[in-house]
This record gives sequence, structure tokens and C-alpha cells, in this order.
Amino acid sequence: MKKAVILYSGGLDSTTCMAIARDNGFEPYALSFSYGQRHSVELEKAREYAPLVGAKEHMVVDIDLRQMGGSALTSEIEVPKDGADQTQIPITYVPARNTIFLSFALGWAEVLGAQDIYIGVNAVDYSGYPDCRPEFIAAFQAMADLATRAGVEGNPYKIQAPLINLTKAQIIERGLALGVDYRYTHSCYDPAEDGRACGHCDSCLLRLKGFADAGSSDPVAYV
Amino acid sequence: MKKAVILYSGGLDSTTCMAIARDNGFEPYALSFSYGQRHSVELEKAREYAPLVGAKEHMVVDIDLRQMGGSALTSEIEVPKDGADQTQIPITYVPARNTIFLSFALGWAEVLGAQDIYIGVNAVDYSGYPDCRPEFIAAFQAMADLATRAGVEGNPYKIQAPLINLTKAQIIERGLALGVDYRYTHSCYDPAEDGRACGHCDSCLLRLKGFADAGSSDPVAYV
Repeated sequence: MKKAVILYSGGLDSTTCMAIARDNGFEPYALSFSYGQRHSVELEKAREYAPLVGAKEHMVVDIDLRQMGGSALTSEIEVPKDGADQTQIPITYVPARNTIFLSFALGWAEVLGAQDIYIGVNAVDYSGYPDCRPEFIAAFQAMADLATRAGVEGNPYKIQAPLINLTKAQIIERGLALGVDYRYTHSCYDPAEDGRACGHCDSCLLRLKGFADAGSSDPVAYV
Repeated sequence: MKKAVILYSGGLDSTTCMAIARDNGFEPYALSFSYGQRHSVELEKAREYAPLVGAKEHMVVDIDLRQMGGSALTSEIEVPKDGADQTQIPITYVPARNTIFLSFALGWAEVLGAQDIYIGVNAVDYSGYPDCRPEFIAAFQAMADLATRAGVEGNPYKIQAPLINLTKAQIIERGLALGVDYRYTHSCYDPAEDGRACGHCDSCLLRLKGFADAGSSDPVAYV
């Protein structure tokens, strides 16, 4: 079986991506990051869920983005609630995050002999993050072939972003059709101590609307 | 003064880069990585030397590339001595290393409001690393503008690789003309316990030849 590296947060999008990679015939190697998230519950859930949603291996790379500052997700800036201004890049944006994550995925892919990297970015519900757009993915792929031994030797990389043109509802419908159990996913930016989702952050609002639009209900617990 | 992020290893090339950035009117923000190098002496020297060679700030980011494997510089594979085969990509190549390093530099630049990133790659004495070539640098720069808030808002990044077409001797001549004290640089892949350079690894051989070709002598200690 061909291997693929999946950028995996334990969330709804990356879990759906993993199911799509498996459906495309790949053995998924899940890659997560401990990057100074405000709530380590995200990472605990990713470790717990990775084998349950089909990862062959799960690697967690420790990188401390907190010392760089600049984002509500990794610093003490307050997470916005109940409808951020969607016309601007939000303060939950982490500088160069997907660039950094894809770079590690590229390194691991080269070591594994994998040519495919899956990333669950989405240009519809993308919250204004510049590194979630198709033009960014295309530019990263072009760079990857020049950056690596495999690329130079004629084995091009493919950065697979299968969710990029789907709405959240379409992502959920695709996942349900592939048998994804969304109990084993976690999306909230600001969960309670016991791990339940807040229901009010951007990520919860998008997720709840997605399930509603898909005519389904979200199996995770909310406060 | 404009700020620039300098990828800084404590070595001859990145130290010369820092001097060039200062000469170009930038305030240098030096960025190093603790990435599972075989010898922590490299990082100790970088911490010691950064303020001595003009860094305004020095940030060390911890990333563990060892768990990925794949290189003699971060694993138990033996470092080649006395003239590696220069026709192949050497086993000291670390998968996606410069991509990973530049990605962090991009994140820090965005937080600092810097638009310039200096990297001391060199296409002449580049030892066959794919991520030391001009086409890689150009592709990374194109990607950076699509990846970031600053790029999207019309402030393009410039990945400065001022050594890319210089021989080692020309790099040393340039540095000496700018007043670089090469005592405060470290290049050896395989130093002795007391920090002295081995004189036989690829990096030492290139350095010694560079000083000889520049008609100068290397001020660092060898075993």
C-alpha cells in the first residue's frame, strides 16, 4: 500500500481527510503538533482518536510557537466569541502555521518514501486564513519538488487538499458516507475543563452549522 | 531601523550573512534551531556568539527532527570523512530542513513586522543539498507571499540569499571586509569533546580550503 502523510489535529476536517486518503488507497501516517495550544485537550484527543479513525502511525512533533507570539490560539489574547468579523484575517490566525506544518509533513514524507500529503484546509469556511487558499497549496507543492531529494530525483509531491472547495456540510456528508464516526473528532478552540465543546467559538459555530446544514446532528458533547 | 530575520547556526556562512544584513541597514533577529544535532556544542556556540557578532535578539526554537530519522546529522548514521562523493545528495542531508527553518523564520518575520529573511545557502559549495539552490529560494519566496497576512496585504517578503553565488573563499573575503571575527563561528559536523573542530568532515574541509583560497588562515582551533 502507498503511504500518505495526513496533517491531523483530531478535528472534523483532518479526520475526514484521513478517511478520504484511506478511500483513495493510502495507508495514513498521521502527523500532529504540540505547538503551545491553549488547551492540551486537543492533543490528548488526537492521541486517543488517531488509531480509532484509522491511522497506521501517529507522530506528534513538539514545536513551541508560543515564543513567537502573534495569535489568540497560542497566547493570552482572548478568543473571539459569537461571530468574528469575517472580512478580516482573524486574530486566531497563527503566523505561517500551515507552512510550518506542511514543511514537517514534507520531511516525514521524504523519510517514509511517501509522495502524498493530505491537508484538510478549506477555502469556503476558511475564516480568512491566507494559508487555507488553493493558491497557497499550489505554491507549496511547487516549492516542495525543488526542496527535496525525491523531488529532484523526479518523484513529485502531491499536496492533497480534498476539502478545499467543500462547505462544512458537504465535508460532513462526505465523511458520513465514508463511515467516519464524528464522536472521535474535536473542534472547539476553547473547551471546558472536562473537554466538552464551548458551542460559541468560531470553530464550534461552523461545526454546528455544518451538521445542521447536512441535516444531521453533532455527536460530541457541548457545555 | 528595519528588522530582518537571519537563519543563524553560529557557522561561518550565517555569521557572514548577519554582517551583510547589518551592512544593508537591517537590525538582525537571529533564529537558531535545536533540532537534535549530534553535538550540542553547535548550539552552545551559537548562543555564545550571537551577541558577539551583532544579533539584536537571538531565538532558539526547539524542534525534534530526530524522531523523523533519515540523516547522518540527526541520527546514528556515521558522518562521512575526507571527501564524500559530491555527485550524489549526501547522507548528511536532513529532509526538508531549510524548508522547515524558513517556515519558522517566516512566522517570526510576520510577528516582528519584518519583510526580509536572510539565509546563508550557497550553490557553489552546496554539497548537493536540493534546498540550497536558487530555484528553491525563489519558490519559497513565491509561496511566502501567499501564505501570510503581510503577503496578502501587499507587503511581499524577500528571501535574501546573498552568498548563493559566492565560493567559500569569496564568502570569507566578504566577511573579513565587513569586519567579521571568524573566531566566533563554528562549522564542524563532528567536533571533539572540548569543542575543537575535527578538520576532516565535509564542513571542515570546505572551510579550510576557503581560508586557504582566500589567502587567510582560520582562527578556530582544530584537533
